[in-house]
Amino acid sequence: MAWLDQTGVQWSTDPQVLAEKRLDRSGWEPDGSPAAVVFPRTVADVQAVLKGAQETRTKIVARGAGTALTGATAAGDGVLVLDLSGLNRILDVRPADGVAVVEPGVITANLDRAAAAHGLRYAPDPASLELSTIGGNIATNAGGLRCAKYGVTRDAVLGLDVVLAGGERISTGRATLKGVAGYDLTGLFVGSEGTLGVIVGATLRLRPLPEPTATIAAYYPDVETAAAASVALAEARIQPVLAELLDQATLDAIDPGLRATGSALLIVQTDGGPDEAAHAAEVLAKGATLVQSAGDPAELLKARRQALPSIEKLGRPLIEDIAVPRSRLAEAVRRIGVIAARHDVPICTLAHAGDGNLHPIIVAGAHGEPIPDAATRAADEIFALALELGGTVTGEHGVGVLKRAWLAKEIGPLAHDLQRQIKAVFDPLGILNPGKAI
Amino acid sequence: MAWLDQTGVQWSTDPQVLAEKRLDRSGWEPDGSPAAVVFPRTVADVQAVLKGAQETRTKIVARGAGTALTGATAAGDGVLVLDLSGLNRILDVRPADGVAVVEPGVITANLDRAAAAHGLRYAPDPASLELSTIGGNIATNAGGLRCAKYGVTRDAVLGLDVVLAGGERISTGRATLKGVAGYDLTGLFVGSEGTLGVIVGATLRLRPLPEPTATIAAYYPDVETAAAASVALAEARIQPVLAELLDQATLDAIDPGLRATGSALLIVQTDGGPDEAAHAAEVLAKGATLVQSAGDPAELLKARRQALPSIEKLGRPLIEDIAVPRSRLAEAVRRIGVIAARHDVPICTLAHAGDGNLHPIIVAGAHGEPIPDAATRAADEIFALALELGGTVTGEHGVGVLKRAWLAKEIGPLAHDLQRQIKAVFDPLGILNPGKAI
Repeated sequence: MAWLDQTGVQWSTDPQVLAEKRLDRSGWEPDGSPAAVVFPRTVADVQAVLKGAQETRTKIVARGAGTALTGATAAGDGVLVLDLSGLNRILDVRPADGVAVVEPGVITANLDRAAAAHGLRYAPDPASLELSTIGGNIATNAGGLRCAKYGVTRDAVLGLDVVLAGGERISTGRATLKGVAGYDLTGLFVGSEGTLGVIVGATLRLRPLPEPTATIAAYYPDVETAAAASVALAEARIQPVLAELLDQATLDAIDPGLRATGSALLIVQTDGGPDEAAHAAEVLAKGATLVQSAGDPAELLKARRQALPSIEKLGRPLIEDIAVPRSRLAEAVRRIGVIAARHDVPICTLAHAGDGNLHPIIVAGAHGEPIPDAATRAADEIFALALELGGTVTGEHGVGVLKRAWLAKEIGPLAHDLQRQIKAVFDPLGILNPGKAI
Repeated sequence: MAWLDQTGVQWSTDPQVLAEKRLDRSGWEPDGSPAAVVFPRTVADVQAVLKGAQETRTKIVARGAGTALTGATAAGDGVLVLDLSGLNRILDVRPADGVAVVEPGVITANLDRAAAAHGLRYAPDPASLELSTIGGNIATNAGGLRCAKYGVTRDAVLGLDVVLAGGERISTGRATLKGVAGYDLTGLFVGSEGTLGVIVGATLRLRPLPEPTATIAAYYPDVETAAAASVALAEARIQPVLAELLDQATLDAIDPGLRATGSALLIVQTDGGPDEAAHAAEVLAKGATLVQSAGDPAELLKARRQALPSIEKLGRPLIEDIAVPRSRLAEAVRRIGVIAARHDVPICTLAHAGDGNLHPIIVAGAHGEPIPDAATRAADEIFALALELGGTVTGEHGVGVLKRAWLAKEIGPLAHDLQRQIKAVFDPLGILNPGKAI
């Protein structure tokens, strides 16, 4: 990597730095260790690194905070890690235009706070929002809780600045709220997991801060009734901001005493005003064993917040991520329970019920131990179930390394081949995040 | 086109049929006449035609209702017109899933009515919605009035069935509300104007029907004050469903007597309930010469509805379509007025103010006469203005034939070359809508 000296960009081969940048949060371990980590501070730095990488055929793994759950930012033998966390400026917040212009290393929650100072907000809110970066959110097309009403990352990205594999810089999309000039390269980069180019800037849509939300927690005797309640909201013309479903295994992990209250919990927030909130409470009451709507919203959301930490106490969590048509949600949760019993591995399921997006969390043995085969087999059955129910193997986390085989099954050989040809257009030498996504 | 007989699909070379399918609504005339029109009734029909077309190197122009305003569906010398209006079934409306599955020839308003029967709606509402088809809306990524709040066509398309240039069929995207498996081919086809493949099916997002709207019509002494009022709405955290701006030239065309009331009209609809409506009326009152909010919404919207018919009485309308950052809206309208004066051609400007999307309508001589050079020069200056203000040459109508040169200027040679390479991946022989879009 001596060529990096010619770029003038700071870089390191310190073993501790390499170890820090080798993994993401998926638990997946690549073979070997990256060769170096480079720390660009400007777009020109990124261009110089990419130009040198193409000339020397050096493989690049771009990363922000490394919060991917799929192996997408894991960096193995000999690759160069491009750490974009130093490009972290919010360049512009323009309330009159409803847009912000940012560098990729901006922490998502920081952008949202900057927007809030103007009565606006950046809507996408992945669970990692206090850690993860806008660039990473764009690379994975991150979802979140309130995307049920306000859309996923793709819906918030108007335009991008991208450095291509050879170091050239292009702008895609637009600075306006609307625009249809040419093929949608912006949409192509969103969710491409660093395989088509390196995102070095983004123009993002900000939305008016809505009214404060009302929060309702409703317990049900079974997951079918809970899922039906979430569908009934839509049928009552209510668009909740979030609708989070916790299954019995999750409730048991939080507090076995909750079983007396119900076997499934649905937590709903609305922001359409008091009439909508009252209407939602009425709809959710049908078949419920307990409905709580008074008091501190944070308290009502407590079970959702406690879910992952509680599950982590049971062992090492593999956080899966499938989506099904909303009407199949209850069936999906039930059958995940059957899969758990068959393989004798605990699986706790959380779902963004408004979207039909489930996170079955497989407790895969003790922390630090190898992942048991039974857990891997259960995960495969969950993916097969998603496809059988007309769904997808990834609702919002992406493909990374862990779901490459399943991607091929989901989209079919013809679409897969088209995707490979698109990859070849943008990265003919295959230096960008090789072995990931497609 | 004798090979068409082998496909078993109905086709015609009747001169009257050819004449009917030769033009779209742009006024642009291609050289010559199409060779034939083919009328598929099934996806297999489309596959058979595309396979034969690839084998015989026959150029294809797919069309629905032919309402494009850009020449995108104009069909010249020797091409085969693929008329998709016969694939017009709404295959499924699934309220619990929040989706509909349709064929491309479905009239957009018919889908919206089918959804309304379930308390839902299909949100995108291009002005042509009673004529234009879903397939055409997808091919151009059509906008509309209420997309200010509910998004453009792209935001409503979850998955597509597409027949590729060689006749193979692929599915893109998903049947679920969320999904991130692989590159976003769905987004690539949306807005590709028939140049990458033929859309033969779509899975579309339906949304809960909102509360009835409140409508407010506010007149202002000048366009700056009107534009400032539309920005003030966003700053007051109000997200209007629509915010339509009419400039003085447009008001003059409707009724010169309106000049006594004001020089710019802003019509706003909200659907967030009575509190939001009252708040919006209060915000819009600032600087207004007249605010009307009581009475029949249709009456309050009358001026907007009368605008195009009134302008058509002045002569042949060229409907342009640029978008600028919302803060530059007033400047754009003012400078379009200067362009009109310089070239001595009437230009009436309507704008979707919430999006910064302007439709300057150039009155280009008498109906049926050749378009005067002055009108063409004025249009070019309007496109240059859009780019100078940080905007785009097309907000929602697309590129077609008329804006190809401007597309290259807007996106730059590098992005343009990438787009050409993507085109070559999907259509290596260049048989799909040649000479259009990119």
